[in-house]
Amino acid sequence: MNEETLIVDLYELTMAAGYFEQQYNPTVTFELFIRELPEPRNYLVTAGLEQVIEYLQNLSFNSGQIEYLRNLPSFKNISQAFFDYLSTFHFSGNMYAIPEGTIVFANEPLIQIEAPLIEAQIVETYLLSMINFQTMVASKAARVIHAATSDGQQRGVMEFGSRRAHGPEASVLAARAAYLAGFMGTSNVLAGKRFDIPVLGTTAHSWTMAFESEEDAFRRYQDVFKEKATFLIDTYDTVQGVENAMKVADDFLAVRIDSGDLAEEARKIRKILDRNGRQEVKIILSSDLNEYKIQDMIRKQTPVDYFGVGTQVATSFDAPALQAVYKMVEIAAKDHVQYRAKFSRNKVTLPGRKQIWRFANRQVSHDLICNSDEDYSNQAFPLIRQYIRKGKVIVDVPDVRQARRVVADHLQQLPQSLLSLTKKETYPVKISSKLMNILNSLKNQMENKEV
Amino acid sequence: MNEETLIVDLYELTMAAGYFEQQYNPTVTFELFIRELPEPRNYLVTAGLEQVIEYLQNLSFNSGQIEYLRNLPSFKNISQAFFDYLSTFHFSGNMYAIPEGTIVFANEPLIQIEAPLIEAQIVETYLLSMINFQTMVASKAARVIHAATSDGQQRGVMEFGSRRAHGPEASVLAARAAYLAGFMGTSNVLAGKRFDIPVLGTTAHSWTMAFESEEDAFRRYQDVFKEKATFLIDTYDTVQGVENAMKVADDFLAVRIDSGDLAEEARKIRKILDRNGRQEVKIILSSDLNEYKIQDMIRKQTPVDYFGVGTQVATSFDAPALQAVYKMVEIAAKDHVQYRAKFSRNKVTLPGRKQIWRFANRQVSHDLICNSDEDYSNQAFPLIRQYIRKGKVIVDVPDVRQARRVVADHLQQLPQSLLSLTKKETYPVKISSKLMNILNSLKNQMENKEV
Repeated sequence: MNEETLIVDLYELTMAAGYFEQQYNPTVTFELFIRELPEPRNYLVTAGLEQVIEYLQNLSFNSGQIEYLRNLPSFKNISQAFFDYLSTFHFSGNMYAIPEGTIVFANEPLIQIEAPLIEAQIVETYLLSMINFQTMVASKAARVIHAATSDGQQRGVMEFGSRRAHGPEASVLAARAAYLAGFMGTSNVLAGKRFDIPVLGTTAHSWTMAFESEEDAFRRYQDVFKEKATFLIDTYDTVQGVENAMKVADDFLAVRIDSGDLAEEARKIRKILDRNGRQEVKIILSSDLNEYKIQDMIRKQTPVDYFGVGTQVATSFDAPALQAVYKMVEIAAKDHVQYRAKFSRNKVTLPGRKQIWRFANRQVSHDLICNSDEDYSNQAFPLIRQYIRKGKVIVDVPDVRQARRVVADHLQQLPQSLLSLTKKETYPVKISSKLMNILNSLKNQMENKEV
Repeated sequence: MNEETLIVDLYELTMAAGYFEQQYNPTVTFELFIRELPEPRNYLVTAGLEQVIEYLQNLSFNSGQIEYLRNLPSFKNISQAFFDYLSTFHFSGNMYAIPEGTIVFANEPLIQIEAPLIEAQIVETYLLSMINFQTMVASKAARVIHAATSDGQQRGVMEFGSRRAHGPEASVLAARAAYLAGFMGTSNVLAGKRFDIPVLGTTAHSWTMAFESEEDAFRRYQDVFKEKATFLIDTYDTVQGVENAMKVADDFLAVRIDSGDLAEEARKIRKILDRNGRQEVKIILSSDLNEYKIQDMIRKQTPVDYFGVGTQVATSFDAPALQAVYKMVEIAAKDHVQYRAKFSRNKVTLPGRKQIWRFANRQVSHDLICNSDEDYSNQAFPLIRQYIRKGKVIVDVPDVRQARRVVADHLQQLPQSLLSLTKKETYPVKISSKLMNILNSLKNQMENKEV
C-alpha cells in the first residue's frame, strides 16, 4: 500500500480532475526553487532528492484511495472516467534536478518536472514537503559542522534530535539530512537501518536513576559495555560523576556532560581526567547546542571531543521553514514553447526551463541562471542533470553517503566568507540576458493582452 | 511490518540490553512533561495521545530488525538471550495520561508509563516525538483560532501547511493537531482519510497559468466546479481577477487572495463584489499568515470569511520545538516505593507518580500537582486518567473529533487573560505539601548517601 500518494493538497487533485474534465493535459514544466534564503543562511545544501525519486517511481492510487476521493464533496461533478484514469495513473514524465549535497542559492531550480500537466500538478505537495525539510536540516547541519571544526580540528557531531523532531518520520529524515551534511551519525536507529548510516549513542540519566547509587549504576554499565562504556556524569554532580566513573572502570571511552555551563564543566572534568592519567577518555558535550554555542566553546578552547546536537538541527530551530515553491514555467504547445511566469506582487517568477552554470576558478565565483538551451560548458559547469526520462530512472541515484562527499567538496570550493555563521555579502547569482529577454517579452505580451 | 519500532534513540536499546544483562527489570514509573512553555505561550493544548496508544499496542520487533540490532557494534557484548527477549517483546505495563484536547501547563505530567524498566525505557523516544510535535501544533493552532474569532464572529481557518511541514508524515500529523485545536479542516488528503476530518481546498496559480488567459482559465474552472468554484484572483491583478470571476460565473463560492496587502486587497475586492450584487461570495485570505497578522486584520475590520494558514501553524514557526522530557519518578521495590528525582542544575524533577487536580469555580482558578494517592475530588477534578492496564486499552480512546470538543470546552473555562497572544501572568500551578515533603526527604537521603 502506498499511503504517500494521498500526502497531497486537495487542490492538486481537484485541479487534476478539472484538467481531465476539460480534456486539457499538455506537457508542461514546473520548477521547484527557494525564493529567499532564511536569515542568516549564506547558502543551502540540497537534500531529499533520493526520496523524491522513490516517490515518483512508486506513485499510484489504489482502489481504497480512489473510493475515498470519489466520495468527497469536491469531486461531486467529476465523471467516472477521471477515477478510471487515476486507477492506472503513474508518473510518465521527465525529471531534472541538482544532485543532493550541492551548495545552492535563492532562485535556483532544485527540481524540474516536465510532464503531462495532471501528473506535474499532483506531485507538487510531496516534492515541496520533502525538499523543503531535508534541505533545511542539511543546511543547518552544515553550519553546525563548520562551527565544531572552526579551529581546524576534526571533531565529530552526533545527531540526537529524534525526540524533538516534528514527529517520528521527521526524526528519520532529519537524521539522514544531518548525516548528508557531515554529521558523524545519528541516535535514530531506523535512520541507521534504512539509509545505512552510523547509529550512535551514550546513556541516559534514567540508567543512573534506576539503581541505588551512581556508583552502582556505573559499575553495572561498565560490567556490560566494558571499554566501550560512556558515562553520563551530570545526574547528580559532575565531579563526583567522573570520580565514580574512574573508580569503577580502568578503561572506558568517554564521559558526557548534559547540563550546566558546558565549557566550564568540560575544563574541570578534563583536568580531573588528565590528573588521573585518563588522557584517552573523551568528553562529549550536549544540551540544546547550536552552531553559535559551539563556535563560542571552540573559541574558548574548550577541551571537547564530540558534540551531541538535537533540537536545533532536527527542527532548524532558528529558521524552521524553507519557502520553496513549485511554479509552472512553460507549456509545450503544438509547434512552439509557451513561456509562463507569475506577476503577483513580490512573487514574480522567471519563465522557461533553466540550466544553472557555475563559474569557478579554483574557488567558485558566481552562478548564471540561463534558459536550458544556453551553453557555457567551455567556462562553467552545469548544476542541473536529468534523472528520469519518460518515467524511468536513467542514472544511478547517489545515496546519502555519496551526497555527503559532494557536500564536503562543494564547501571547500566556496568563498570562505560564505561559511561565516552571520549573514555576509550575497553570493552572486546572475540571470542571463536571454532569460531576461524572455521575461520581458512575456510581460509585454501579457500587458498587451490586458489592454 | 512495524517500522515505528526502530524510531528510537540507540541508547534506549543499549540501556535495555544493559538492564537485561544485569537481570534488573523492576517496575518503574516514568512521566512525560514539559519543563517550560515557550514564549509567548500562556497554555498548551495536549495532542498525540491516540497515536501513542496505537504505538504501544503495536510495539514489537521483527526478525529483520533484531538481526540489524544484533550486528551493530554497540551490541557486541550482548547475549543471544536479549535478542530472544526482543522477539517476544510487547508493552505489558500501565499507561495514564491527560486526555487529548486538555489545556495544560508546565511541569504537568501528560503521560505516565508504569511498566517493567526495559519496556518503559524503549518507548521514550517515540512518545516524546509524537507528543512534542502534536501538542506544539495544537497549541499554536488554538492561538490562530482565537485571533480569527477575536471580534466574536465565527470565522473558519483552514490548514494549508503540508508543503512546509517537516516532511510528508509531519504534514499529516500537523493537520490532525490543527483540526483538534479548532481548525475547520485541512488541505491534506491523507489526514482527511486517516482521521476522518474535512479536506478543503481552493485552486492554485498553476490553474490560471495553464491556460491562455485568466478569463479562459476561470471559465473552464467554473465549467467543472459550478457553484462550488473558488477563484484565486491574484495571479496577475486582483481587480481584473475578480472581474473575470464575475464575468464567467453567475454563482460561485469565493475568491482567494494570496499576496499583497491582504487587508487592503480584501476591502477593495469586497466593495467590487458588493457593488455587483455578489454579497454572498466569500473572501478567503492566505499568504504566510499567523495569529498576529490575523488579529491585526480583525482589528481593522477586514472583510474576510475564511483564513488559510500554512507554514506558521504546521511548523509552529515562532516556537518550533517543545521541550517535553521523560523522567523516572519511582521504582517499585519489594515492599515499598523508591522515589526518584534528578538534581542536575536547572533540571530538577519531582519524584513519585502524580495526579493533577484542577480547581474551578465557573472559571478555572489553579492546578495542584499532587502525589497520585492524594484526593481532592470534593473540590477539584483530576486531569490524569488510566488508558492502558497490563498492556490492554481499558477505555474507549477519544478520537480527534471528540478531543476537538474538549479543547473548545476547556478554552471557555480558562481565565480570559490567558487567551491573549502575548505573555500574561502565569497560570498558578501549585505543588502539594506532600509532594514537596517527598522531594525534600529524597534530597536529604541523597545528600546523606554522598557524605
